[in-house]
Amino acid sequence: MAPVRYPDLIAKKRDGQELSDEEIQMFVQGVAKEDMGDSQIGAMLMAIFLRGMSTREVTTLTQEMVNSGECLTWPEEWKDILVDKHSTGGVGDKISLVLMPALAAVGMKVPTISGRGLAHTGGTLDKLEAIPGFRVSLTSQEMTHMLRTVGVFIAGQTQNICPADKIMYKTRDVTATVNHIGLITGSIMSKKLAESIKSLVLDVKTGNGALMADEQQAAELAESMVSCGKGLGLNSVALITDMDSPIGNMVGNALEVAESIWCLQGKGPSDLEDLVVEQGGQLLAASGKADSVEEGTDKLRQSIRNGTALGVFREMMKGQGVSSDVADDLCDPQKDVWTILTPAKNKTELKSPTAGYVKRIDAMPVAVAVHRLGGGRTTPGASINWSVGVQLLADIGSQLDQGQAWAVIHHDENIPDDVLSMLENALKLSSEKVPPVSSRVKRVISK
Amino acid sequence: MAPVRYPDLIAKKRDGQELSDEEIQMFVQGVAKEDMGDSQIGAMLMAIFLRGMSTREVTTLTQEMVNSGECLTWPEEWKDILVDKHSTGGVGDKISLVLMPALAAVGMKVPTISGRGLAHTGGTLDKLEAIPGFRVSLTSQEMTHMLRTVGVFIAGQTQNICPADKIMYKTRDVTATVNHIGLITGSIMSKKLAESIKSLVLDVKTGNGALMADEQQAAELAESMVSCGKGLGLNSVALITDMDSPIGNMVGNALEVAESIWCLQGKGPSDLEDLVVEQGGQLLAASGKADSVEEGTDKLRQSIRNGTALGVFREMMKGQGVSSDVADDLCDPQKDVWTILTPAKNKTELKSPTAGYVKRIDAMPVAVAVHRLGGGRTTPGASINWSVGVQLLADIGSQLDQGQAWAVIHHDENIPDDVLSMLENALKLSSEKVPPVSSRVKRVISK
Repeated sequence: MAPVRYPDLIAKKRDGQELSDEEIQMFVQGVAKEDMGDSQIGAMLMAIFLRGMSTREVTTLTQEMVNSGECLTWPEEWKDILVDKHSTGGVGDKISLVLMPALAAVGMKVPTISGRGLAHTGGTLDKLEAIPGFRVSLTSQEMTHMLRTVGVFIAGQTQNICPADKIMYKTRDVTATVNHIGLITGSIMSKKLAESIKSLVLDVKTGNGALMADEQQAAELAESMVSCGKGLGLNSVALITDMDSPIGNMVGNALEVAESIWCLQGKGPSDLEDLVVEQGGQLLAASGKADSVEEGTDKLRQSIRNGTALGVFREMMKGQGVSSDVADDLCDPQKDVWTILTPAKNKTELKSPTAGYVKRIDAMPVAVAVHRLGGGRTTPGASINWSVGVQLLADIGSQLDQGQAWAVIHHDENIPDDVLSMLENALKLSSEKVPPVSSRVKRVISK
Repeated sequence: MAPVRYPDLIAKKRDGQELSDEEIQMFVQGVAKEDMGDSQIGAMLMAIFLRGMSTREVTTLTQEMVNSGECLTWPEEWKDILVDKHSTGGVGDKISLVLMPALAAVGMKVPTISGRGLAHTGGTLDKLEAIPGFRVSLTSQEMTHMLRTVGVFIAGQTQNICPADKIMYKTRDVTATVNHIGLITGSIMSKKLAESIKSLVLDVKTGNGALMADEQQAAELAESMVSCGKGLGLNSVALITDMDSPIGNMVGNALEVAESIWCLQGKGPSDLEDLVVEQGGQLLAASGKADSVEEGTDKLRQSIRNGTALGVFREMMKGQGVSSDVADDLCDPQKDVWTILTPAKNKTELKSPTAGYVKRIDAMPVAVAVHRLGGGRTTPGASINWSVGVQLLADIGSQLDQGQAWAVIHHDENIPDDVLSMLENALKLSSEKVPPVSSRVKRVISK
């Protein structure tokens, strides 16, 4: 290969031209090998942000980011049943904690590489770490062992997966180039492709609590990811789902673990269970392991009803460092999860200022409030408080009397005034009856 | 001031909005204090390149770059007579070596901070260093002493002038953001403003040997610089000048010193002398030290004719480290400059392939050839060969016989074949008579 002139590559994209496959390879390898300077990466990302990338460019970028590191490898006989899910990040989004075990319970192999929370949305790894002993760092030997014995693991990214993406992601975060569909696609899809899975369901959130508030933009991202996946041999299906109100009733790390276990015990909120089985049903149908979405949905709902999904969750905990006693007690429907999980020191009720019907509970202020109470982090690596959070006592459509409690704040310290009023303003009431939400799924995109 | 969120600043420019004066200050201070990351500087420069800057933004950027470092300071009584020149860089451009002494000879104070050559154009400092003993690094005490005793110095940038520009310039060079009118304006004008001068003449080159080949673009740059200068209290006038053919007959460091001395002795090529006095005349008129451009031009031509400009050049050399004997001998019309300057080891003539009239001698291939022969550098700090170069024996309009020499290559090593053919192709002949060039000045811009 000719010696790389990075300024020429940058100039080509700056001038709105398409980069060849070889040029994209030069760019990604330059990033991964730290041969390209930080200022050059920043300039290239901004040029991409403002000039765009074609579908071919995005697909090549994604493949090259996969090539920049190692891929997980699995026994040949699993190749058709390896599946995973990705969410663009929602408020109260504990879907993975329920769906991944349920998929394993119906016979799939589910190697889930997940992330930590930054900004307002929580991370699946942070939630799991609210369980005493849960270990999210697994070696590749441990990953294979988990899939062989339990069928599922949920772990953090290993050092060698998509190193180019790690650098680009960190750079995008500080250069105002996060919100670009092509770059988001490359970042998400490269990490999923490196899991060497066969099929993927994508949960693309839209609404006030989502990265992409606008539904049209969310649909464009979904289409971009699905077509990138297909271009690289990964069956992909995307659901555009509503993120105006939090998922379920619990927001906060330990609170969401509790609600996930209740859901796996068949007594979770219906919007959470519905979203779990709708996503899983699409995935089973896409991977050919169910003849229809309905059949897939039914199978998964059954795995929740008959306790097999809960059993997988229990074994997953044990396989990832949780002691048998703790795992058994946490899953035992006769036992209080709060004897295992650490509750917050204080509870403060929020009361309805007037009578009315719940029209909306805005997801974003709830997320920001939990973050401010200590449940999230502002710098990578900072410690978080797993116990704090917000518990909603009312659903969309609920009727509230004046002075009736509609939420409980779980907190350790005093609640700052602005956090309190942020939460009070999250409740939107109507004087007229409001129908309950039938489904959070707005659209399915499978190209 | 609020804590700076660089991503927000970058996002604002990315979205095509104007930055406030305070935001530009944050950006420039972030660069100068190395608080803003390299990737953020790269992204911001690309956003500026693609989204543009208003005249106000450019003016503020320039002022903030000046503020990022120190300014030269001079006795109050000089304030109206401090002048300088800047050229965007041409081929055979030795104007400063003649003009700066001539301006001092007519009573101006001329604190010239100059640069070294990179890429194809030579640097004034490199040319001066072809003179044995010439020292381009001066302390501020030495600078003041030079202006007091001689009236002029030509020196390199000190560490503390426009540190923000130093970082931005280096970053632009590797991020494909060099060629942006606002950023060029800021870089050039900040360094001139830091000289604390009253009036400035700008020589903006256009044609095949110039940074801005296109005349319209050159005029836009000239207008941008003039309006920036005026906005910040610096009298500025710009000349758009032709750079299709080299200036004078000599290209190469020592060759250009020789030609400058001949010009100061009143026997230089007329296009060089004309360009010197035309630029100087505009500057004297702009600074109010001549009632008209013509009066200024006449004064400067007289300083060349009567030897006072040569005398200043001689004293400047002595003040900047050249021994009296060397300086005297170099300026003595009875002595051969090549007893002082080092000639190249070999001379090779280029002969005209056919008879005809010289229509053009392309500047760019001549510059690149001299660079390739060792007269320029590809990496900052590399050493160069002062002796090599190209001497033109014919001017535009000259009549050549077949086989008649039109140029002499001064070289130490063998001439690479591609360099030879590059030079052979630089000569453009016409079978019909071609008029000589009357003036290189295409336009004067003073707003």
